[in-house]
Amino acid sequence: MPTDVPRYWEDYEIGKKYPLGSTSFTEQEIVEFARLYDPQNFHVDAEAARASMFGGLIASGWHVAAKLMRLFVDNYIDTRTALGSPGLDELRWLKPVRPGDTLTAWVECAAKVPSKSKPDLGVIHEHWSAINQKGELVVTVKGINMVRRKPA
Amino acid sequence: MPTDVPRYWEDYEIGKKYPLGSTSFTEQEIVEFARLYDPQNFHVDAEAARASMFGGLIASGWHVAAKLMRLFVDNYIDTRTALGSPGLDELRWLKPVRPGDTLTAWVECAAKVPSKSKPDLGVIHEHWSAINQKGELVVTVKGINMVRRKPA
Repeated sequence: MPTDVPRYWEDYEIGKKYPLGSTSFTEQEIVEFARLYDPQNFHVDAEAARASMFGGLIASGWHVAAKLMRLFVDNYIDTRTALGSPGLDELRWLKPVRPGDTLTAWVECAAKVPSKSKPDLGVIHEHWSAINQKGELVVTVKGINMVRRKPA
Repeated sequence: MPTDVPRYWEDYEIGKKYPLGSTSFTEQEIVEFARLYDPQNFHVDAEAARASMFGGLIASGWHVAAKLMRLFVDNYIDTRTALGSPGLDELRWLKPVRPGDTLTAWVECAAKVPSKSKPDLGVIHEHWSAINQKGELVVTVKGINMVRRKPA
C-alpha cells in the first residue's frame, strides 16, 4: 500500500473486493519450499508425483497460503497500520496448484469489529479467494486482521 | 513415520495424542521466510520490530504453521498413505514466536470419517497444539487430512 496517507481500520469498506494481484509458481520454488516444510512425495519428487493421485507435482498448501500472504501484504494491508492476526476461521485448498500455474487473488472485507479492550485498534474479517489461469477457484481463506484506528 | 508397515486410516486412534517433536526458530530463518512471504516490519526489521507492539522480531504466523507442518510430516502422517488435505477448520496464533524460541507440538486425533465417494480413503480431523519453552500455548490448528484405508 504505497500511498502517502496510511490506510486505517476506518478506511476499509465492508463488502468491497480488494484485488491482490497475481502470483506464479515454478517447479523449483514448489520443490524448494516443500523440501523445507512439507516433504511429501507429491510436493518434492516429480516422478513419484506422476504416480500419485495428483498425476504430477503440486505445491504445498502452506506454500500457496504463504504466497497469497505476500500479495496480501503488498496490496491490501498497510504495514504502517497492520497489527498482526490472531488466526484464521477457515482455509480451503480446493484445487491443486501445479508448476506454471498463476493465481489471481482478491479479498472481500466481510466484517469490522472495534476492539473493546484496545480503543486504538479494530479487527477486520476478510474472505480471501484465488483463482487459477483457467478461472477455477483454488483457495479460500476466512482471515482475521488487526488494524490501527485513525487517530482522533 | 519410518516403520516397515504403512500407517493406514484404520491405525489412527480417536482421542490419542501423537507427539510431533520440537522445532526451533533462529532470527535468520524468521527474517528469510518473512522477506519472501510476509514482509511486515515486525517480521523482517529488528529495529522497527523493537518499536512495534511486539517489542521485537516475531516469526510470521505462516512460518510457524509451515514448521509445524514439517513436524506433522516427519512424525505423524505416513507419506506412503497420506493423500493431502482439503483445508483447515481453524487456526489460532495465540502468542508470538521469537528468535531462539522452541516449540513442542502434538496432534490429537479428533474424529475419523470414511469417504462415501472413495472407499479406499478416509478423512481424519486433527487438533494440533504447540507450546513454547515456557509452556505457553502458542498455536492451535483444527486440521483435516485424507489417508489411504487398509487394503481389504
